[in-house]
Amino acid sequence: MQDFYEWYNEKIRLIVDNRYPIKGALVWTPFGFKLQKLAFDKLRELLEATGHKETRFPTLIPENQLEKEEEHVKGFKDEVYWITHGGLSKLDIPLALRPTSETVIYPMFSLWIRSHADLPLKVFQVVNTFRYETKHTRPLIRDREIGFFKEAHCAHADAADAEKEMKTIRRIYKEFFDALGIPYLILQRPDWDKFPGAEKTISFDQLMPNGKTLQIATSHYLGTNFSKMFEVDYETDDGGRALAHITCHGISGRAIAGVVSAHGDEKGLILPPEFAPVQVVIVPIPFKGKEELVLSYAKEIHKKAEALGWRVELDDGEETPGNKYYYWEERGVPFRIEIGPREAGNETITLVRRDTGEKKVVPLKNLEDLLDKSAKEIAENLRETARKRVEKLVKKAKSKSDLKKKGLVFKVEVCSPECAKTLEDECIEGMEYRGHLLDEKPEGKCLACGKKAKYVGIISNAY
Amino acid sequence: MQDFYEWYNEKIRLIVDNRYPIKGALVWTPFGFKLQKLAFDKLRELLEATGHKETRFPTLIPENQLEKEEEHVKGFKDEVYWITHGGLSKLDIPLALRPTSETVIYPMFSLWIRSHADLPLKVFQVVNTFRYETKHTRPLIRDREIGFFKEAHCAHADAADAEKEMKTIRRIYKEFFDALGIPYLILQRPDWDKFPGAEKTISFDQLMPNGKTLQIATSHYLGTNFSKMFEVDYETDDGGRALAHITCHGISGRAIAGVVSAHGDEKGLILPPEFAPVQVVIVPIPFKGKEELVLSYAKEIHKKAEALGWRVELDDGEETPGNKYYYWEERGVPFRIEIGPREAGNETITLVRRDTGEKKVVPLKNLEDLLDKSAKEIAENLRETARKRVEKLVKKAKSKSDLKKKGLVFKVEVCSPECAKTLEDECIEGMEYRGHLLDEKPEGKCLACGKKAKYVGIISNAY
Repeated sequence: MQDFYEWYNEKIRLIVDNRYPIKGALVWTPFGFKLQKLAFDKLRELLEATGHKETRFPTLIPENQLEKEEEHVKGFKDEVYWITHGGLSKLDIPLALRPTSETVIYPMFSLWIRSHADLPLKVFQVVNTFRYETKHTRPLIRDREIGFFKEAHCAHADAADAEKEMKTIRRIYKEFFDALGIPYLILQRPDWDKFPGAEKTISFDQLMPNGKTLQIATSHYLGTNFSKMFEVDYETDDGGRALAHITCHGISGRAIAGVVSAHGDEKGLILPPEFAPVQVVIVPIPFKGKEELVLSYAKEIHKKAEALGWRVELDDGEETPGNKYYYWEERGVPFRIEIGPREAGNETITLVRRDTGEKKVVPLKNLEDLLDKSAKEIAENLRETARKRVEKLVKKAKSKSDLKKKGLVFKVEVCSPECAKTLEDECIEGMEYRGHLLDEKPEGKCLACGKKAKYVGIISNAY
Repeated sequence: MQDFYEWYNEKIRLIVDNRYPIKGALVWTPFGFKLQKLAFDKLRELLEATGHKETRFPTLIPENQLEKEEEHVKGFKDEVYWITHGGLSKLDIPLALRPTSETVIYPMFSLWIRSHADLPLKVFQVVNTFRYETKHTRPLIRDREIGFFKEAHCAHADAADAEKEMKTIRRIYKEFFDALGIPYLILQRPDWDKFPGAEKTISFDQLMPNGKTLQIATSHYLGTNFSKMFEVDYETDDGGRALAHITCHGISGRAIAGVVSAHGDEKGLILPPEFAPVQVVIVPIPFKGKEELVLSYAKEIHKKAEALGWRVELDDGEETPGNKYYYWEERGVPFRIEIGPREAGNETITLVRRDTGEKKVVPLKNLEDLLDKSAKEIAENLRETARKRVEKLVKKAKSKSDLKKKGLVFKVEVCSPECAKTLEDECIEGMEYRGHLLDEKPEGKCLACGKKAKYVGIISNAY
């Protein structure tokens, strides 16, 4: 396959058009919007099934409200867009475009939460957020207007309930990214790289085909830092008052960059059937004198597959079959059904899989079972292929000199994040310590200082 | 019923919380969000079924781009929020928060449209828009951040195709508002009250219970005004170039204000079953010694109704049945099922309708048919009741002195919008000429000048 950057920049245009005259502001194509919707509707489902309710909060934040949590505002103030004028009048207080919504939501939590009975309070919204990025933008990876940021915010009676929520969210996110077939690591970020204002930050980092990592989800325990500033407290059972413990959890449109990056090939996108905007394309193969027969059979199959609940396109346009194949393959459509006079004559279909290219002729009556079964196989195959493609890029560093290699993600056994940080110097430029794996225990000694290791850390070149 | 204003301000809080510290910026409650989603998903369905594709465009507009269409910018510039700073740096070009997206979308149309084959191009998005309102704000009626603005934008080869689209949109909007049971008039706005930059503006004006009118949808023919400025042109079949004709069509979160206003009573909201976030509430009636029996039967019904596709809540909380009735009635839940030992004993349910209060005991086995049939009846009854409630507020003015009356919407037969405008002076303050009815022909003479009437105009106090 061609260079990953080049491939990504070309193929991502099917999802978002980046020719809008503001850098880092994207236009979602109908195709891209649909892919996004299918993915985020899955996420909504998972969140709703665990008691999170969808809501919508305002976009604008008065300056004095954004500044209430000191650490938080330090982390964001340099990249906030400021509204200073309404019409021709100067505003009394400048308004920030939300870079994230903690300072929007928690003042409302303060109004909504009275007693223990109101907890936990679990809400989420899917909104655009804004960062005045001074770094180079990259469509869906680093944008100035971030589309479809799913942010869940939860208030809990105590730290234990907050920790329970962190676990629930990890389970949900795993299920979500597994469904998308995205290979990832789950990391606890080091203290210096936590979300501004958080006590603890957990991150899902995707392993990208070029050996970089991409943060695709985060889950933060905010402790009582924000509750204190925004007075999110409740009456306890004994009549006293206690601060709520807050957690927040985000996944943005980057997840779409993730699924696109995980599965493509030189022909274009390959999409997991569950999320493909078009799951089945039917291409009639013209044959002189049999056009009517072929087309009416193709229409019958179209109807049948749609009735079974699949998203189907019948491509009866003017282009050659070859051009049609090319067009739909580029868009990652999992199944192609080719229909010629032979298929029409003996009630069969020719089914081609996008992921493997496998082609077989099968009786039409098997359509339902075949699509169901193959869709599962494709999802599994994509997940496995994506994982294998990148897992060879993850190397355990056995000596400091291992760290000199390019294009890799390093596992380092260390005794502390600080020791891991010192190892960064042994790496080539751009590599950084991203945190330690939540699900892996070390076996040996700290690569930096030789003491007994406590963590398996990750050093990578992160987007 | 109490004063409509007071009632509205109180009940709308179930939908949106307006205590956020920016005037006119609302927080949608989970309940309100769900009602919105059910309504706008219906609208999406109607639009998609007629070939409109959902997309998403950026929020920010460079000043020079907003200013390209002269009439348009004149109409909006005074109420635009301006971003002047990114972080601590002053931006080279101020950015506007979209008040509406014509100037965002048409530059992209210019890139996307090459030839006749690309037309018609029909897209829509559902987004927040911003107006720096200096008038008194009112939740969901006049906001500074307008939530859920559904804007459809379409490019057509010629005026005839544009007109066809205007008709399609009217049909869709009728279906949408009829489903919501909202009583409305369809008006062509007079020239001085068109959308800035439009050739023609059609509006749906809801008849409110207090005799005012509320614009709940608009549909504009923009001609080639914007195409010219943004170079939205195409290659014609003979190899020349022609400007596209553009139409755009909007419905905002106001539609939710509309449905709330149309159907309430002193107990609270009354919602059409299709859109009610909770359609059926089951309330177990406790009876000493039979708690288990009642609860397990209630659970059985819960499961059964959910399996039939209804949105059901089983309220097995600690409150008294009376309090539960009150709570769910206020939220407009169309059906209440009461379950006591008698119902559990003989496999019946007691079903209560929110709209009529009618209560009947029916066999459980009839549940499916009964809910289906009653839901249709409720929708029909709400639509009819809402219509009757307001149609007596619409009076045909037979003489100028009729126009002195308060709290009414006047039909006036006139020969021109200008003549209608002169009649405004005969009215009490606040009344204005809103345009003429699309579906009604005059029978007599112009009330202003006595010539043969050409239009049936509407004069009302509009929100």
